[in-house]
Amino acid sequence: MAIEIERKFLLANDNWRALVSKSINYRQGYLNSDKHSSVRVRVSDDTAKLNIKSATIGAQRQEYEYDIPADDAHELLNTLCHKPLIEKTRHIVVIKQHTWEIDEFSGENQGLCVAEIELSHVDELFEKMDWVGEEVTEDIRYYNNQLVKNPYTRW
Amino acid sequence: MAIEIERKFLLANDNWRALVSKSINYRQGYLNSDKHSSVRVRVSDDTAKLNIKSATIGAQRQEYEYDIPADDAHELLNTLCHKPLIEKTRHIVVIKQHTWEIDEFSGENQGLCVAEIELSHVDELFEKMDWVGEEVTEDIRYYNNQLVKNPYTRW
Repeated sequence: MAIEIERKFLLANDNWRALVSKSINYRQGYLNSDKHSSVRVRVSDDTAKLNIKSATIGAQRQEYEYDIPADDAHELLNTLCHKPLIEKTRHIVVIKQHTWEIDEFSGENQGLCVAEIELSHVDELFEKMDWVGEEVTEDIRYYNNQLVKNPYTRW
Repeated sequence: MAIEIERKFLLANDNWRALVSKSINYRQGYLNSDKHSSVRVRVSDDTAKLNIKSATIGAQRQEYEYDIPADDAHELLNTLCHKPLIEKTRHIVVIKQHTWEIDEFSGENQGLCVAEIELSHVDELFEKMDWVGEEVTEDIRYYNNQLVKNPYTRW
Protein backbone atom coordinates (compact mmCIF):
# COMPACT_ATOMS: atom_id res chain seq x y z
CA MET A 1 0.00 0.00 0.00
CA ALA A 2 1.14 3.53 -0.80
CA ILE A 3 -0.27 6.82 0.39
CA GLU A 4 -0.73 9.07 -2.64
CA ILE A 5 -0.52 12.84 -2.14
CA GLU A 6 -1.47 14.82 -5.22
CA ARG A 7 -2.67 18.33 -6.01
CA LYS A 8 -4.62 19.02 -9.19
CA PHE A 9 -4.86 22.22 -11.26
CA LEU A 10 -6.47 23.47 -14.44
CA LEU A 11 -4.18 24.83 -17.16
CA ALA A 12 -3.94 28.61 -17.62
CA ASN A 13 -2.25 28.44 -21.03
CA ASP A 14 -0.38 26.09 -23.40
CA ASN A 15 3.19 27.00 -22.40
CA TRP A 16 3.63 23.54 -20.79
CA ARG A 17 3.58 21.86 -24.21
CA ALA A 18 7.15 22.95 -24.98
CA LEU A 19 8.33 21.23 -21.77
CA VAL A 20 6.85 17.75 -22.32
CA SER A 21 9.46 14.98 -21.96
CA LYS A 22 7.14 12.01 -22.61
CA SER A 23 3.53 11.31 -23.61
CA ILE A 24 1.60 8.08 -22.83
CA ASN A 25 -1.85 7.04 -24.06
CA TYR A 26 -4.23 5.63 -21.45
CA ARG A 27 -7.53 3.80 -21.81
CA GLN A 28 -9.12 3.15 -18.45
CA GLY A 29 -12.38 2.27 -16.79
CA TYR A 30 -13.87 1.58 -13.38
CA LEU A 31 -15.36 -1.64 -12.02
CA ASN A 32 -16.77 0.48 -9.25
CA SER A 33 -16.52 3.83 -7.60
CA ASP A 34 -18.56 4.13 -4.44
CA LYS A 35 -18.21 6.02 -1.19
CA HIS A 36 -15.47 3.65 0.07
CA SER A 37 -13.18 3.00 -2.89
CA SER A 38 -12.66 2.85 -6.64
CA VAL A 39 -11.33 -0.11 -8.64
CA ARG A 40 -9.72 0.94 -11.91
CA VAL A 41 -8.48 -1.02 -14.94
CA ARG A 42 -5.90 0.88 -17.00
CA VAL A 43 -4.12 -0.04 -20.21
CA SER A 44 -1.27 2.17 -21.43
CA ASP A 45 1.00 1.73 -24.42
CA ASP A 46 2.90 -1.07 -22.64
CA THR A 47 1.28 -1.90 -19.30
CA ALA A 48 -2.01 -3.23 -17.91
CA LYS A 49 -2.86 -2.56 -14.29
CA LEU A 50 -5.57 -2.96 -11.71
CA ASN A 51 -5.64 -0.11 -9.21
CA ILE A 52 -7.56 0.29 -5.95
CA LYS A 53 -7.90 3.69 -4.28
CA SER A 54 -9.71 4.85 -1.18
CA ALA A 55 -12.46 7.36 -1.95
CA THR A 56 -11.22 10.07 0.42
CA ILE A 57 -11.72 13.50 -1.13
CA GLY A 58 -8.66 15.74 -1.18
CA ALA A 59 -4.92 15.35 -1.56
CA GLN A 60 -4.14 12.14 0.39
CA ARG A 61 -5.43 8.71 -0.67
CA GLN A 62 -4.66 5.05 0.09
CA GLU A 63 -3.58 3.23 -3.10
CA TYR A 64 -2.81 -0.32 -4.28
CA GLU A 65 -1.70 -1.32 -7.78
CA TYR A 66 -1.19 -4.70 -9.46
CA ASP A 67 -0.04 -5.77 -12.93
CA ILE A 68 -2.57 -7.95 -14.73
CA PRO A 69 -2.44 -9.68 -18.14
CA ALA A 70 -3.19 -7.23 -20.99
CA ASP A 71 -5.83 -9.58 -22.45
CA ASP A 72 -7.73 -9.61 -19.13
CA ALA A 73 -7.51 -5.81 -18.93
CA HIS A 74 -8.99 -5.32 -22.41
CA GLU A 75 -11.80 -7.81 -21.66
CA LEU A 76 -12.60 -6.09 -18.36
CA LEU A 77 -12.64 -2.68 -20.08
CA ASN A 78 -14.86 -3.92 -22.90
CA THR A 79 -17.33 -5.91 -20.77
CA LEU A 80 -17.48 -5.13 -17.03
CA CYS A 81 -16.18 -1.55 -16.68
CA HIS A 82 -18.66 1.33 -16.51
CA LYS A 83 -19.06 3.31 -19.74
CA PRO A 84 -17.92 5.64 -21.16
CA LEU A 85 -14.30 4.62 -20.70
CA ILE A 86 -11.74 7.34 -19.98
CA GLU A 87 -9.35 8.02 -22.84
CA LYS A 88 -6.50 10.44 -22.35
CA THR A 89 -2.93 11.26 -23.19
CA ARG A 90 -0.69 11.87 -20.18
CA HIS A 91 2.12 14.35 -20.80
CA ILE A 92 5.07 14.35 -18.40
CA VAL A 93 6.69 17.67 -17.50
CA VAL A 94 9.60 17.71 -15.03
CA ILE A 95 10.23 20.99 -13.21
CA LYS A 96 13.23 20.75 -10.86
CA GLN A 97 12.56 17.87 -8.42
CA HIS A 98 8.85 17.66 -9.25
CA THR A 99 7.03 15.73 -11.95
CA TRP A 100 3.81 17.13 -13.41
CA GLU A 101 1.37 14.78 -15.11
CA ILE A 102 -0.78 16.72 -17.54
CA ASP A 103 -3.83 14.74 -18.69
CA GLU A 104 -5.37 15.75 -22.01
CA PHE A 105 -8.69 13.94 -22.38
CA SER A 106 -10.39 12.71 -25.54
CA GLY A 107 -13.64 10.86 -26.23
CA GLU A 108 -16.52 12.08 -24.06
CA ASN A 109 -14.15 14.24 -22.02
CA GLN A 110 -12.62 16.00 -25.05
CA GLY A 111 -11.54 19.56 -24.20
CA LEU A 112 -10.57 18.84 -20.60
CA CYS A 113 -6.95 19.20 -19.52
CA VAL A 114 -5.70 18.94 -15.91
CA ALA A 115 -2.24 19.00 -14.33
CA GLU A 116 -1.35 16.91 -11.28
CA ILE A 117 1.72 17.13 -9.10
CA GLU A 118 2.71 14.37 -6.69
CA LEU A 119 4.06 15.62 -3.38
CA SER A 120 5.76 13.92 -0.45
CA HIS A 121 3.56 15.76 2.05
CA VAL A 122 0.44 17.89 1.72
CA ASP A 123 2.17 21.22 2.44
CA GLU A 124 5.30 20.65 0.32
CA LEU A 125 6.29 23.74 -1.67
CA PHE A 126 6.65 23.62 -5.46
CA GLU A 127 7.30 26.05 -8.32
CA LYS A 128 3.98 27.40 -9.65
CA MET A 129 4.63 27.88 -13.36
CA ASP A 130 2.67 30.49 -15.36
CA TRP A 131 0.67 27.68 -17.02
CA VAL A 132 -0.63 26.38 -13.66
CA GLY A 133 -4.19 27.65 -13.25
CA GLU A 134 -6.96 27.24 -10.69
CA GLU A 135 -6.54 24.46 -8.11
CA VAL A 136 -9.27 21.77 -8.29
CA THR A 137 -7.86 19.14 -5.87
CA GLU A 138 -11.02 19.18 -3.76
CA ASP A 139 -13.48 19.29 -6.68
CA ILE A 140 -14.78 15.75 -7.20
CA ARG A 141 -16.06 16.57 -10.71
CA TYR A 142 -12.44 16.26 -11.89
CA TYR A 143 -11.92 12.79 -10.41
CA ASN A 144 -11.53 10.35 -13.30
CA ASN A 145 -14.24 8.09 -11.84
CA GLN A 146 -16.63 11.09 -11.82
CA LEU A 147 -15.72 11.85 -15.45
CA VAL A 148 -17.36 8.49 -16.30
CA LYS A 149 -20.63 9.42 -14.55
CA ASN A 150 -20.62 13.01 -15.76
CA PRO A 151 -18.23 13.53 -18.73
CA TYR A 152 -16.82 16.99 -19.40
CA THR A 153 -18.62 17.40 -22.74
CA ARG A 154 -21.94 17.33 -20.81
CA TRP A 155 -20.96 20.02 -18.23
CA MET B 1 -10.54 -15.06 -17.92
CA ALA B 2 -12.42 -18.20 -16.94
CA ILE B 3 -16.10 -18.95 -17.28
CA GLU B 4 -17.33 -20.34 -13.97
CA ILE B 5 -20.30 -22.74 -14.01
CA GLU B 6 -21.59 -23.57 -10.55
CA ARG B 7 -24.80 -24.86 -9.02
CA LYS B 8 -25.62 -24.18 -5.38
CA PHE B 9 -27.71 -26.22 -2.92
CA LEU B 10 -28.78 -26.13 0.71
CA LEU B 11 -27.83 -29.11 2.88
CA ALA B 12 -30.55 -31.65 3.76
CA ASN B 13 -28.56 -33.34 6.56
CA ASP B 14 -25.06 -33.66 8.04
CA ASN B 15 -24.01 -36.87 6.26
CA TRP B 16 -21.47 -34.92 4.16
CA ARG B 17 -19.30 -34.29 7.23
CA ALA B 18 -17.93 -37.85 7.17
CA LEU B 19 -16.74 -37.32 3.57
CA VAL B 20 -14.71 -34.11 4.03
CA SER B 21 -11.18 -34.42 2.66
CA LYS B 22 -9.98 -30.89 3.49
CA SER B 23 -11.23 -27.76 5.29
CA ILE B 24 -9.99 -24.21 4.63
CA ASN B 25 -10.80 -21.02 6.56
CA TYR B 26 -11.72 -17.96 4.49
CA ARG B 27 -12.04 -14.33 5.46
CA GLN B 28 -13.32 -12.25 2.57
CA GLY B 29 -14.90 -8.95 1.72
CA TYR B 30 -16.11 -6.92 -1.25
CA LEU B 31 -14.78 -3.63 -2.57
CA ASN B 32 -17.96 -3.45 -4.57
CA SER B 33 -20.86 -5.46 -5.79
CA ASP B 34 -23.08 -3.64 -8.24
CA LYS B 35 -25.20 -4.63 -11.21
CA HIS B 36 -22.14 -5.16 -13.42
CA SER B 37 -19.56 -6.96 -11.28
CA SER B 38 -18.17 -7.77 -7.84
CA VAL B 39 -14.58 -7.27 -6.67
CA ARG B 40 -13.65 -9.58 -3.81
CA VAL B 41 -10.61 -9.75 -1.50
CA ARG B 42 -10.11 -13.19 0.05
CA VAL B 43 -7.55 -14.45 2.54
CA SER B 44 -7.34 -18.17 3.27
CA ASP B 45 -4.93 -20.09 5.47
CA ASP B 46 -2.15 -19.66 2.92
CA THR B 47 -3.28 -17.44 0.02
CA ALA B 48 -4.47 -13.88 -0.63
CA LYS B 49 -6.41 -13.15 -3.80
CA LEU B 50 -8.30 -10.45 -5.60
CA ASN B 51 -11.22 -11.80 -7.62
CA ILE B 52 -13.47 -10.11 -10.16
CA LYS B 53 -16.77 -11.69 -11.23
CA SER B 54 -19.49 -10.57 -13.56
CA ALA B 55 -22.81 -10.04 -11.79
CA THR B 56 -24.85 -12.35 -14.02
CA ILE B 57 -27.42 -14.25 -11.97
CA GLY B 58 -27.41 -18.02 -12.44
CA ALA B 59 -24.88 -20.74 -13.08
CA GLN B 60 -22.45 -19.15 -15.57
CA ARG B 61 -20.22 -16.18 -14.67
CA GLN B 62 -17.13 -14.47 -16.07
CA GLU B 63 -14.27 -14.65 -13.54
CA TYR B 64 -10.74 -13.24 -13.08
CA GLU B 65 -8.43 -13.97 -10.16
CA TYR B 66 -5.06 -12.53 -9.12
CA ASP B 67 -2.67 -13.23 -6.24
CA ILE B 68 -1.92 -10.16 -4.14
CA PRO B 69 0.40 -9.65 -1.14
CA ALA B 70 -1.20 -10.92 2.11
CA ASP B 71 -0.46 -7.62 3.89
CA ASP B 72 -2.38 -5.68 1.20
CA ALA B 73 -5.28 -8.13 1.44
CA HIS B 74 -5.59 -7.72 5.22
CA GLU B 75 -5.42 -3.91 4.91
CA LEU B 76 -8.08 -3.91 2.18
CA LEU B 77 -10.33 -6.17 4.28
CA ASN B 78 -9.88 -4.04 7.40
CA THR B 79 -10.26 -0.64 5.74
CA LEU B 80 -11.94 -0.50 2.31
CA CYS B 81 -14.10 -3.64 2.10
CA HIS B 82 -17.79 -3.42 2.96
CA LYS B 83 -18.73 -4.72 6.42
CA PRO B 84 -19.54 -7.23 7.78
CA LEU B 85 -16.81 -9.38 6.26
CA ILE B 86 -17.69 -12.94 5.26
CA GLU B 87 -16.12 -15.58 7.48
CA LYS B 88 -16.54 -19.23 6.58
CA THR B 89 -14.94 -22.64 6.56
CA ARG B 90 -14.94 -24.36 3.19
CA HIS B 91 -15.14 -28.15 3.37
CA ILE B 92 -14.09 -30.14 0.31
CA VAL B 93 -16.01 -33.31 -0.55
CA VAL B 94 -15.03 -35.28 -3.65
CA ILE B 95 -17.72 -37.54 -5.15
CA LYS B 96 -16.44 -39.44 -8.19
CA GLN B 97 -15.19 -36.86 -10.73
CA HIS B 98 -16.91 -33.92 -9.00
CA THR B 99 -15.73 -31.67 -6.20
CA TRP B 100 -18.27 -30.19 -3.78
CA GLU B 101 -17.37 -27.07 -1.83
CA ILE B 102 -19.48 -26.88 1.31
CA ASP B 103 -19.34 -23.45 2.94
CA GLU B 104 -20.15 -23.29 6.65
CA PHE B 105 -20.51 -19.64 7.62
CA SER B 106 -19.68 -17.99 10.95
CA GLY B 107 -19.88 -14.39 12.19
CA GLU B 108 -23.03 -12.59 11.03
CA ASN B 109 -23.92 -15.51 8.74
CA GLN B 110 -23.65 -18.17 11.47
CA GLY B 111 -26.03 -21.06 10.85
CA LEU B 112 -25.86 -20.92 7.05
CA CYS B 113 -24.37 -23.82 5.14
CA VAL B 114 -24.40 -24.17 1.32
CA ALA B 115 -22.92 -26.72 -1.09
CA GLU B 116 -21.55 -25.74 -4.51
CA ILE B 117 -20.57 -27.99 -7.36
CA GLU B 118 -18.48 -26.76 -10.29
CA LEU B 119 -19.55 -28.16 -13.65
CA SER B 120 -18.01 -28.09 -17.10
CA HIS B 121 -21.36 -27.15 -18.68
CA VAL B 122 -24.72 -26.04 -17.26
CA ASP B 123 -26.54 -29.32 -17.97
CA GLU B 124 -23.77 -31.69 -16.85
CA LEU B 125 -25.11 -34.60 -14.80
CA PHE B 126 -23.80 -35.31 -11.27
CA GLU B 127 -24.61 -37.66 -8.42
CA LYS B 128 -27.20 -36.09 -6.09
CA MET B 129 -26.24 -37.37 -2.63
CA ASP B 130 -28.86 -37.68 0.14
CA TRP B 131 -27.36 -34.61 1.87
CA VAL B 132 -27.94 -32.37 -1.19
CA GLY B 133 -31.08 -30.31 -0.47
CA GLU B 134 -32.98 -27.55 -2.26
CA GLU B 135 -31.24 -25.84 -5.20
CA VAL B 136 -30.61 -22.09 -4.67
CA THR B 137 -28.40 -21.31 -7.70
CA GLU B 138 -30.77 -18.58 -8.91
CA ASP B 139 -31.49 -17.10 -5.44
CA ILE B 140 -29.31 -14.01 -5.08
CA ARG B 141 -29.76 -13.95 -1.27
CA TYR B 142 -27.18 -16.75 -1.13
CA TYR B 143 -24.55 -14.88 -3.13
CA ASN B 144 -21.68 -14.07 -0.79
CA ASN B 145 -21.80 -10.40 -1.78
CA GLN B 146 -25.50 -10.33 -0.79
CA LEU B 147 -24.65 -11.96 2.56
CA VAL B 148 -22.71 -8.77 3.35
CA LYS B 149 -25.74 -6.54 2.65
CA ASN B 150 -28.25 -8.89 4.27
CA PRO B 151 -26.51 -11.44 6.55
CA TYR B 152 -28.25 -14.74 7.29
CA THR B 153 -28.73 -14.01 11.01
CA ARG B 154 -31.04 -11.11 10.00
CA TRP B 155 -33.26 -13.18 7.64
